[in-house]
Amino acid sequence: MKTELIALDWGTSSLRAYRLGAAGQPIEERSLALGIMQLDGGDAGFEGALQQACGDWQKADPHAPLIACGMVGSQQGWREAAYVQAPLTAADLGAALRPVERAAGMPLWLVPGVIQRGALPNVMRGEETQVFGLLEERSQEQGSLLIGLPGSHSKWVTVEQGRLSRFHTFMTGEVYGALLAHTILGRTAITRDAFDAQAFERGLRVAQSSDGRGGPLSTIFSSRTLVLTGALSGEAQPDYLSGLLIGHELMAMRALCQASADQPIVLIGNGALCSRYLWALEHCGFESLSFAPQATVTGLWTIAVNAGLVGAASGGYGHV
Amino acid sequence: MKTELIALDWGTSSLRAYRLGAAGQPIEERSLALGIMQLDGGDAGFEGALQQACGDWQKADPHAPLIACGMVGSQQGWREAAYVQAPLTAADLGAALRPVERAAGMPLWLVPGVIQRGALPNVMRGEETQVFGLLEERSQEQGSLLIGLPGSHSKWVTVEQGRLSRFHTFMTGEVYGALLAHTILGRTAITRDAFDAQAFERGLRVAQSSDGRGGPLSTIFSSRTLVLTGALSGEAQPDYLSGLLIGHELMAMRALCQASADQPIVLIGNGALCSRYLWALEHCGFESLSFAPQATVTGLWTIAVNAGLVGAASGGYGHV
Repeated sequence: MKTELIALDWGTSSLRAYRLGAAGQPIEERSLALGIMQLDGGDAGFEGALQQACGDWQKADPHAPLIACGMVGSQQGWREAAYVQAPLTAADLGAALRPVERAAGMPLWLVPGVIQRGALPNVMRGEETQVFGLLEERSQEQGSLLIGLPGSHSKWVTVEQGRLSRFHTFMTGEVYGALLAHTILGRTAITRDAFDAQAFERGLRVAQSSDGRGGPLSTIFSSRTLVLTGALSGEAQPDYLSGLLIGHELMAMRALCQASADQPIVLIGNGALCSRYLWALEHCGFESLSFAPQATVTGLWTIAVNAGLVGAASGGYGHV
Repeated sequence: MKTELIALDWGTSSLRAYRLGAAGQPIEERSLALGIMQLDGGDAGFEGALQQACGDWQKADPHAPLIACGMVGSQQGWREAAYVQAPLTAADLGAALRPVERAAGMPLWLVPGVIQRGALPNVMRGEETQVFGLLEERSQEQGSLLIGLPGSHSKWVTVEQGRLSRFHTFMTGEVYGALLAHTILGRTAITRDAFDAQAFERGLRVAQSSDGRGGPLSTIFSSRTLVLTGALSGEAQPDYLSGLLIGHELMAMRALCQASADQPIVLIGNGALCSRYLWALEHCGFESLSFAPQATVTGLWTIAVNAGLVGAASGGYGHV
């Protein structure tokens, strides 16, 4: 089947390549450990990675356009695709793609990140593509939608009438990692693969309790003292800490977004992490929850259509 | 002058030894890099450090009693002096000293730490001695006093009628260090010795603003985005982050302690760090502030008196 678009999700630690056919249908997918931090930098390094990911696709269909989102468009990436200001639509993103001219073959079009100016500026790069992918897949929805993208830097994005209107960032995932690896909390914690639901929920409850008014700087210390006093096992400490931090994030998100219990919320991302957030959101009393495993492919197709790189949109294919 | 008491402040990274004369007057002071983390452990390691610190004092006055506070009495210390439960007085601490019998010479008496039981237990070890030292020095004061001990784990201690009644811990200092050293925030931050008062105050203002409702997990990200957008220099980022975190700590402390603007507050500790906190407390509207550089020596003397190791109290000497 003919390649209509080569779509790349090119982040810090990985490069995912998708070969899309008519109407954005995914035909083939590859994942390589060639994130921008794994590359030497310079045109040669990026070009080499691109060839490795999809040189054969380009050879077979030399006129297939290429588009990429993620950190490849950052200052540390191949070229910088300057931030576009929120509020914005998929058309605004499509109009602001930054081309990388290559020695041979079609240019690579970079999707810009999004900036929200103000007293405390906020930025995203990569998440905007998922947001517009999700909107394309749920085109029937109107009104206000709150989209959560959990991760090392969780994003909470408000969408109104198809516009990405504003967003917040919480460094929850990265803080969690740094606390366990580089503070006294790690001395008593024992990490394992199993998920301790009871410990996680206990953390959530504390964050929502009157003790939670102390905020994370205060409550995290309890993840140590509960172990010292035998009220929590070292094995349960990581999930308790996770519940604490996610609980604080959701309490703060609710205040910042003034979100009511019936606010429709969709989570996008990693299944295991989204499960934790779905549980936590339910625990906080939110009633209208749903989940999308990923929306990047549809987002890249939608933006490419808006940029005129490919023909009329249809989309709605999230998976190979 | 005769040695009445050998008083040791023996923490994780240092050992401070004080030779005290009549009525607890300090005669001589030494500071050694022989904290419990620098020692091999075992009786020989601790005994060697003790000899190095004050072997000559013991030889000159073989009957002078020895007392120590701090992490030397923790599970990782010489012996564990089990926590005493709050609320408590100096007499309760004096009655709970744990002796270390030595092959030769007087026993070393370890001051126990303090535990506050409850849904979220809280512990301190070393700060209790400073608190009772301060109370001894300010014996004229009645009513409720709030004592702040800033540090890697800040403590906020409420004292009522001479009793240490309750306390809170904030991991502000350690979190600050981990964020700069081990998260993306460190990539743009440039550390220097000078204090950027304007950046610090900007952080304080944000923590108290409506944006501050996002809590530290959210606001800390602005220490990066402000640099990315040119609104803050990399050199100013560390003090901005410090202002943010201390601001969040104080807002939470006020809520937890239900502290009013005229609540008397005393800070004990390192001068530079206490200056930041005094500034921040003023910024938060607190009106009755004072500062004590240290109170450990008076505290050790007071507890020794309460334990009957030395004669009637007088105290009030904080410095050599």
